[in-house]
Amino acid sequence: MSRNFMLLLQYDGTDFDGWQKQGNTDNTIQGKLEQVLSRLEGRKVEVHGAGRTDAGVHAEEQTANVRLQADITAGQLKEYLNRYLPESILVLDVQRAEERFHSRLNAAGKIYTYRLDMADKCSVFQRKYRYALGQELDAEAMRRAAAYLEGTHDFRSFCANRHMKKSTVRTIEQIDIRVTGTRMEIMVHGDGFLYHMVRILVGTLIEVGQGKRLPETMSEVIRARDRQAAGFTAPAGGLFLTKVLYREEDCRG
Amino acid sequence: MSRNFMLLLQYDGTDFDGWQKQGNTDNTIQGKLEQVLSRLEGRKVEVHGAGRTDAGVHAEEQTANVRLQADITAGQLKEYLNRYLPESILVLDVQRAEERFHSRLNAAGKIYTYRLDMADKCSVFQRKYRYALGQELDAEAMRRAAAYLEGTHDFRSFCANRHMKKSTVRTIEQIDIRVTGTRMEIMVHGDGFLYHMVRILVGTLIEVGQGKRLPETMSEVIRARDRQAAGFTAPAGGLFLTKVLYREEDCRG
Repeated sequence: MSRNFMLLLQYDGTDFDGWQKQGNTDNTIQGKLEQVLSRLEGRKVEVHGAGRTDAGVHAEEQTANVRLQADITAGQLKEYLNRYLPESILVLDVQRAEERFHSRLNAAGKIYTYRLDMADKCSVFQRKYRYALGQELDAEAMRRAAAYLEGTHDFRSFCANRHMKKSTVRTIEQIDIRVTGTRMEIMVHGDGFLYHMVRILVGTLIEVGQGKRLPETMSEVIRARDRQAAGFTAPAGGLFLTKVLYREEDCRG
Repeated sequence: MSRNFMLLLQYDGTDFDGWQKQGNTDNTIQGKLEQVLSRLEGRKVEVHGAGRTDAGVHAEEQTANVRLQADITAGQLKEYLNRYLPESILVLDVQRAEERFHSRLNAAGKIYTYRLDMADKCSVFQRKYRYALGQELDAEAMRRAAAYLEGTHDFRSFCANRHMKKSTVRTIEQIDIRVTGTRMEIMVHGDGFLYHMVRILVGTLIEVGQGKRLPETMSEVIRARDRQAAGFTAPAGGLFLTKVLYREEDCRG
């Protein structure tokens, strides 16, 4: 009999090739977790993550799940993982989950946070966690542009995968832009995101904040359904997966 | 004719073998600065730093000075350094200094800040910048102990160099302990510090906060003039050189 566990993970994406496993020369977060858990189980196990974060992208709270046969409690599993994982990955919590719970398929939404600094140079202690833009942005214009992006749209213009065959329709519940001194935080809450979608959304909003695009042109960008119509891809280091959301009945075991 | 420049530097000490140059296989902050400046000058130059921070110790604001023959303004020098230095070293400011100004010999005082987290595990994004103690501390007892350490004393008990022949008398102006949630900041302001002195002071205060030592025993620890009498050496990663202080007349060029 196997047990399904839900893992809440925090990681510094700087030194990893992203979440998703890549063959044998593996320096991914999924790969590190599977290595440690396969040793525990004495067989190959598969870890499912809710968000496939890119190389350099961080997670404040990623959700994953894994089915194990080992006779181990959630607390023991948390302790075991934190003992053997690299220090750039931290298991915040482990809970027993229902047998049918799948971290990605059951995810009802995700919140990403993008952090940047408008100052000339940001602190060296923030260099891997905040995009040093070094330029003043018009936050009000960005908020007006963001309002056009909220809602259900075909976000093909914001998808870096040219050969995406599945639906590119997604719903953005909210984009919240906060400024503290020279620092800006862009929180994006949506039901799901396409490849590079958050970074392209942020890049496009930055161009609005720089005065290179008008807020009202966002409708045209969406309508174009063409990656060329949107802005640049903001650097990975400023991006954090902040939280994965579930419906209450889907996640507890 | 050479010009003396004062440099204000910020660096992430994680990946360096400390401030001070070490022979040829050099991965020190001083070494990186001298490499870049020697290329600019076309001759070997020497950079003087106010504080010789250890491996893994950070600087929020270190002061250094260098004499250059190159026909370059302070602003140009700052730009040049930031272009060629590794991204873990940031030049915050460059100013012309008086010919006789020496960043270390003229320093009137230094402020160091030690950061720790009393929570079980601190955030992965803080792991190189905050000591994850994972234990509640009695801040009030630590403040009472700190009061015994303030003032002018022979700090030989807090010196890791057993063969120190020069005076080990120093003055600590103030030790300030602040708690925010599970986070603690210990600021130490003194006229100068012995080898590992701040980290041993912090380790000793932590032991007081853990209830292993009574605040009043600090006088005995000082009197012992023996490293064995003091506490453990707190890990390097939590320590920051926060500011180097000068008398106004000593620093401007």
